Amino acid sequence: MPLIATPQSQHFSLPLALQSGASLRDYSLSFETYGTLNAGRSNAVLICHALNASHHVAGTYAGQDNSEGWWDNMIGPGKPVDTDRFFVIGVNNLGSCFGSTGPMHANPDAPAGSGRVYGADFPVVTVEDWVNAQARLLDTLGIRTLAAVMGGSLGGMQALSWTLQYPERVRHAVVVASAPNLTAENIAFNEVARRAIVTDPDFHGGHFYEHGTVPKRGLRIARMIGHITYLSDDVMNEKFGRQLREAVLSSADGYRYSTQDVEFQIESYLRYQGDKFAEYFDANTYLLITRALDYFDPARAFGGDLSKALQRATCKFLLVSFTTDWRFAPKRSREVVKALLDNQRDVSYAEIDAPHGHDAFLLDDPRYMDVVRSYFDSIAQSVGAAT
Amino acid sequence: MPLIATPQSQHFSLPLALQSGASLRDYSLSFETYGTLNAGRSNAVLICHALNASHHVAGTYAGQDNSEGWWDNMIGPGKPVDTDRFFVIGVNNLGSCFGSTGPMHANPDAPAGSGRVYGADFPVVTVEDWVNAQARLLDTLGIRTLAAVMGGSLGGMQALSWTLQYPERVRHAVVVASAPNLTAENIAFNEVARRAIVTDPDFHGGHFYEHGTVPKRGLRIARMIGHITYLSDDVMNEKFGRQLREAVLSSADGYRYSTQDVEFQIESYLRYQGDKFAEYFDANTYLLITRALDYFDPARAFGGDLSKALQRATCKFLLVSFTTDWRFAPKRSREVVKALLDNQRDVSYAEIDAPHGHDAFLLDDPRYMDVVRSYFDSIAQSVGAAT
Repeated sequence: MPLIATPQSQHFSLPLALQSGASLRDYSLSFETYGTLNAGRSNAVLICHALNASHHVAGTYAGQDNSEGWWDNMIGPGKPVDTDRFFVIGVNNLGSCFGSTGPMHANPDAPAGSGRVYGADFPVVTVEDWVNAQARLLDTLGIRTLAAVMGGSLGGMQALSWTLQYPERVRHAVVVASAPNLTAENIAFNEVARRAIVTDPDFHGGHFYEHGTVPKRGLRIARMIGHITYLSDDVMNEKFGRQLREAVLSSADGYRYSTQDVEFQIESYLRYQGDKFAEYFDANTYLLITRALDYFDPARAFGGDLSKALQRATCKFLLVSFTTDWRFAPKRSREVVKALLDNQRDVSYAEIDAPHGHDAFLLDDPRYMDVVRSYFDSIAQSVGAAT
Repeated sequence: MPLIATPQSQHFSLPLALQSGASLRDYSLSFETYGTLNAGRSNAVLICHALNASHHVAGTYAGQDNSEGWWDNMIGPGKPVDTDRFFVIGVNNLGSCFGSTGPMHANPDAPAGSGRVYGADFPVVTVEDWVNAQARLLDTLGIRTLAAVMGGSLGGMQALSWTLQYPERVRHAVVVASAPNLTAENIAFNEVARRAIVTDPDFHGGHFYEHGTVPKRGLRIARMIGHITYLSDDVMNEKFGRQLREAVLSSADGYRYSTQDVEFQIESYLRYQGDKFAEYFDANTYLLITRALDYFDPARAFGGDLSKALQRATCKFLLVSFTTDWRFAPKRSREVVKALLDNQRDVSYAEIDAPHGHDAFLLDDPRYMDVVRSYFDSIAQSVGAAT
C-alpha cells in the first residue's frame, strides 16, 4: 500500500535560546510522521535533513504521484527503515524555506504592522539549535526516547549532535556520509557559494523580498558549485565525460567555438540544476544552512579532541561512508569511528565502494541498503518493534 | 648578477588562421628573452604560460625589485633552466590581457574611427592557435629548432601540442602538472567561473569596456573557485584549517555568528585573492583561456586514442606530476607517459610527492627542481649548450 504523507505543523510559543546568544521568540516546525507509535513509545525514528531537503522524507502527497519524499527509497513500508515497524518523523529545520520558521516569515521584532519578514535578520542557527528544536517537537509528540536518529551529510551531523546533547534520549544513531566538522576546503566551497549570493545585486543585503527581487544569479552559481562537490570525478566522467551537447556539423571537430554558449553536456547539466534551484530555494536559507555546516565542530570545546567530545555519547552507532565521496570522505567518518572506539562505544561501520560521490547517500546501492536494513532489523529487536 | 628583463613586442601583419575557422587579421605578441642564442642557434627554450601568467617568466624589471617573473625560481642564471646556457623565451598568448593582442585591443573589423575594442568579439583561440603564433615568433627570432619547449598546467598542454604540430622543431618537451585533456569536473569548474562572470550585470555581454564597468563580482568568484582547485585539501587544512580570523572574546566559542562576515581564515584568504585578481585580470581573457583549456584534446581527432594522437611526436619528453594535484592528477600525466611509451618514445617521468596540490608546479620543492635541473643538464649536453 503506498505511503501517503500529510504535512503537519507545530507551533512553539516558548522562546528558543540559540547557541549564538540570540533567541527565537516563537516559531513553528513543519513535520511529517509515517507509521504508528507503539504502546511503549519505543519505536520512534527521527530523520534529519541536509542542505536542500525538508520534512517530506517519505511517501507521496495524496493525488500527487511524483511527490516522493527525498529519502523515499530508504524509508517506507518494507523498506530498510520500515514504517510498518517504526514510527518515523521527518522535521524541517529552523531557517529553512520549506515550512518551518525561516527568513521568509514575519519578523516579530519588526515594527507592528510593517509585515517585514526576517530576511537577513533571521538569527544564525546551528546544528545544536536544530537538535534542541527537534527535541521539543518530540516532547509534544510524547516521545521521550528515540529508537534511532538518522541523517546523511548535514543530517548526519545532527544525528551525531543528538547523541551528545541528549544522550539519554537516543538508543541508536545512524550517521551517513558525514563528518565531525568541515575541512578548510569544505568551508571554502561554502564561502564561494555565499559570496556569489551576497554579491548578487538582487540580494540587497538579504532584504530582497522588499525589493521584489530574487538573487537568482548567485543561487545558480551556488548550486552549480554544490553539484560539482556532490559528484565524484569518476561518475562525472562516466555520465558526461567530454561529450558535446550538440556537435556542430560544419565544424571539423564538432566544436561551436564559443566562450558563452553551452558546448559540453556537463555545462548543460550544471546550468539546468542551477536554474531549477534558483526557482525554489531561498537565498538567506542557503547562507544559514551552509553556516550551520561551517560551525558544527563538537571537538572544538575539547581543544579539538574528538574522543573527549564523544565521551558523552552512550548510544549504539552505525556509520556509513562512500569511497568516492570527496566532500565528506571516508576518512572523516573513520575519525568518528575511532573516537567512539576510544570510548569503548558499540559502533558498526560500513565503507561502501560506490562510484557516485557524496550523492551516493541518496541512491540505491544495494550493499548500502542492506547494511541499513540489517541495522534497523537489530534495532527493531532491541526496542520491541519487530513485526 | 641579477637578471634584468626587458619586455619586447613583435607585430605580425600576416593573418593567423584559427582552428575555429576565424582568423586574426593582424596581431602583436609580447615576449621576453633571457640569455644568449648560441652560434648554432641550438640552445633556445620556449616557456609557455598558464592561466593568469604572461611573457614575464624570469628576472625583474630594471628598478622594480619586486617584479620577479612568474617562474623566476626555475629559470635564470644558475637555476634549473640555466640562462647562462640556454636562450629562454617567454611569450604572452593571444587573447591575454598582458600585452599580446587581446579583447582589450582595438577591433580592426569595427567601423573606422569607432575605436571599438574586441571585447567579447575576440575570436576563440585554442592551444593549437597559440602554438602556431609562437612558431611565427620563433621564425622572426631566427630559431628553427627548440632545444626544449616547457610549460606547466595549461602551459604543459602547449608544450605537448608543440610536439604534435611542429615535431621537427622540438628536441625536448617538458610537460609539468598537465593533462592530455580536461575531465568533466575540470570543465565544470571552468563553467561555473565563466557563468559567474557572464551573469555579472557589469559584464554587458562582454562589452563592459564601453560601459565603463568591470565585472569584478564575477572575476572574484572565478578566482576563488580557481584557488580552491589549485590547493590540496591537505595543504589547506595545514595552512588554514578551521582557524578563525579573529575570535570574538564575548562569544563562548569565539564565533561571531554571521552569515556574511568573514569568520574563518580560509574565507579571508579567498576573498583577498579574489579582490586582487579582479583588479588586474580581464574578464574576456578569463573566458578565452578557460575555453582553450576545455577544448584541448589531441586524442579527439583519433577517436579518443591518445597513443595514435601522439605518434606524431618525435622528441624526448620529461613529464612531472605532483601527488596531491587533484586538478591535473598524476594519473592524467601517466596517460601521456603510457601513450608515448606505446610509441617507443624516450620519456622520463617524475611523480613528486608534494603536499601543495596543483600549485606545486610553481613552488620550490627540491626534488622537483633537481629533476628539472638534471634533465636540462642532459639537454645542454645534447644540444652543445654546456658551459
